[in-house]
Amino acid sequence: MDETGKPTQHTARIEAFCDGVFAIAATLLVLEVRVPGHDAVTAAGGLWRALGQHWSSYAAYALSFVIIGIMWANHHNIFGYIGRTNHTFVMLNLALLFCVAFLPFPTAVLAQYLPSPEQRTAAAVLYGGTLTVTAVAYNAVWRYAAGGGRLLKRDADRRSVDAVTREYRVGPLLYGAATLVAVLNVWASLAIHVFLAGLYVVPNRSRP
Amino acid sequence: MDETGKPTQHTARIEAFCDGVFAIAATLLVLEVRVPGHDAVTAAGGLWRALGQHWSSYAAYALSFVIIGIMWANHHNIFGYIGRTNHTFVMLNLALLFCVAFLPFPTAVLAQYLPSPEQRTAAAVLYGGTLTVTAVAYNAVWRYAAGGGRLLKRDADRRSVDAVTREYRVGPLLYGAATLVAVLNVWASLAIHVFLAGLYVVPNRSRP
Amino acid sequence: MDETGKPTQHTARIEAFCDGVFAIAATLLVLEVRVPGHDAVTAAGGLWRALGQHWSSYAAYALSFVIIGIMWANHHNIFGYIGRTNHTFVMLNLALLFCVAFLPFPTAVLAQYLPSPEQRTAAAVLYGGTLTVTAVAYNAVWRYAAGGGRLLKRDADRRSVDAVTREYRVGPLLYGAATLVAVLNVWASLAIHVFLAGLYVVPNRSRP
Amino acid sequence: MDETGKPTQHTARIEAFCDGVFAIAATLLVLEVRVPGHDAVTAAGGLWRALGQHWSSYAAYALSFVIIGIMWANHHNIFGYIGRTNHTFVMLNLALLFCVAFLPFPTAVLAQYLPSPEQRTAAAVLYGGTLTVTAVAYNAVWRYAAGGGRLLKRDADRRSVDAVTREYRVGPLLYGAATLVAVLNVWASLAIHVFLAGLYVVPNRSRP
Repeated sequence: MDETGKPTQHTARIEAFCDGVFAIAATLLVLEVRVPGHDAVTAAGGLWRALGQHWSSYAAYALSFVIIGIMWANHHNIFGYIGRTNHTFVMLNLALLFCVAFLPFPTAVLAQYLPSPEQRTAAAVLYGGTLTVTAVAYNAVWRYAAGGGRLLKRDADRRSVDAVTREYRVGPLLYGAATLVAVLNVWASLAIHVFLAGLYVVPNRSRP
Repeated sequence: MDETGKPTQHTARIEAFCDGVFAIAATLLVLEVRVPGHDAVTAAGGLWRALGQHWSSYAAYALSFVIIGIMWANHHNIFGYIGRTNHTFVMLNLALLFCVAFLPFPTAVLAQYLPSPEQRTAAAVLYGGTLTVTAVAYNAVWRYAAGGGRLLKRDADRRSVDAVTREYRVGPLLYGAATLVAVLNVWASLAIHVFLAGLYVVPNRSRP
Repeated sequence: MDETGKPTQHTARIEAFCDGVFAIAATLLVLEVRVPGHDAVTAAGGLWRALGQHWSSYAAYALSFVIIGIMWANHHNIFGYIGRTNHTFVMLNLALLFCVAFLPFPTAVLAQYLPSPEQRTAAAVLYGGTLTVTAVAYNAVWRYAAGGGRLLKRDADRRSVDAVTREYRVGPLLYGAATLVAVLNVWASLAIHVFLAGLYVVPNRSRP
Repeated sequence: MDETGKPTQHTARIEAFCDGVFAIAATLLVLEVRVPGHDAVTAAGGLWRALGQHWSSYAAYALSFVIIGIMWANHHNIFGYIGRTNHTFVMLNLALLFCVAFLPFPTAVLAQYLPSPEQRTAAAVLYGGTLTVTAVAYNAVWRYAAGGGRLLKRDADRRSVDAVTREYRVGPLLYGAATLVAVLNVWASLAIHVFLAGLYVVPNRSRP
């Protein structure tokens, strides 16, 4: 309780809830990877070939799992700087989780329609568009917390905070660009997604 | 252990379990958003159109996700005032989780039958009815804990506690009204649900 | 680290993992409650009637949710007495979770075959049998921890511990009896399950 | 915050996220155990027989649940020695979770194609191959943390740490061998998986 008898607002339970949604969304992705039926196996001439025909499911699973994992790691990272919470901050986090929890759907659409030359553009635009909106939500969460040091811990290093702000600012632009590229060439768009994920995975001097 | 050698009853593990159910129920909602099959895409004349035909799935996902998110935020909020637990309180929380975990079902029914003029009334009444029962369970949880200060922290501000009680009291009435309105007009009923969710999302002087 | 440089064995992470499995198993139950298809709605003469035909799904959902909730509350309760853990205790908890995580399957079988006079006996025996094995696993977890005070907190009240042991001892017998009764009369068997759940839900002097 | 104003890197939130993925992956396995349809029950001559025809689903559920449970227990165990984290360690943990969260898919393939003499070899190789890759990821997580004591707690006993390293080192070899054996004889391969799981489950002097 704070001095007014209202509950003090710690971040622990928000982190726990967000961790839950990130973990569930990532783990639900596997439900979209379908087991080929007996008919498909017979038609394909064996289980290996039938499994091989689902290559786009594995690719979509892998890409989305890594992206959700990275988003979780980022979330983990920024909460290291955040010391308080309030109503608006909780609502912005819910908006972010809204996007994260929705991601299995565009992933499943991409998995199903990537092999189809007529439909793959729509699938890739939907996928990139969802990631773009997610990146915008990410920026909203962080900039609300960091703006004027609103919810930051007192001893948060201003230079590190500003570095995070700069890094995040380009996220929506890059994802938006990848989405536009999908209209011209789906494979180039996906290559950008893979590149962006890879960029985060490799170690970087600016990260602890 | 308390002085009688029985375990002291902290609220941390109830909160963790409730957080888990809230997070899972919210994230499972996306499983109800189906990927259109190849036949549906051909019939609709393309993936965008086929995706567009599932508008009610996206609307139902969005509404239920926001409602579960708000219920979680409320739960988070009231546990800030609660300092102890007992058997009855755990059982009342289970009753609340029973409703929350069930919500993906009326959501899926609404998603599927909202486009159908003959069936949408039943779907909206089921949806509103579930929310009304959930709001009753919410009141039971809170009023059991707050009644006579039974499970409250010692330093909980009486005025804030009473404000929460008053705010929650109207919940079942509003959801019940929205359910009755659905009999007359489904869209008006859904508009009330959206309005009630929006009311919570916007900042409010009474919230920390 | 303990004095030998091996990690000390706290119970917090086991509790967190068990809470996760309990919460997920309970929340997954709703996936078994199917939305009636358009054909079924037309055949039944409306959505309400089609929903009504799935009564056994709602009953099975309700029963299993309450049972999992009670098992969680019990687990929460006994961990209040337990202060340490070891390899065998972790393995016994995994055996218990094995049963809990499996419960959605007999629940779905019961939901689907309870309306069928020829098949409902098998469904009820499978359901009761799973609960009987679960109750045995529960006893194994508790009696391993409590036997000779092996893993109990030092200040755990011996009388309360013995009361828990006596209460749990009858569990497998009662669930086993309910399973046998299912061979004679499915409804009597289910009535026992409901009665046992209700017995736990109501307040009881022996519980904190 | 550390002395440079960057967040200190505790392991608690990684553990929570990993626990979540382990718990969800284990609990999702049951979704692969399908309820036999009314037609299958009629064709089989009763529910018991129809349930019996799904023996491979129960076997696959049991094996994978135990394996995920063991992996969780191991993860729990090694984090007892680990006191810090960094970016690379988080990424290696994500690689491990990637494999764990994928396991329900090869489990479902094994469940469906184990009864089929022509396809079961492919199913068992896929299953064993996934476990082999998972064991490699496990080694990467541990050896990165333990190498030169990089992320270990200061008081971690060197001898215990080396014992864990030696024990883990054989994992990929044993799983790889089981995968190769599957080419010759699927049942022998599965027997090795069961034996390896059993070896971990039984108490062992080297474990706390």
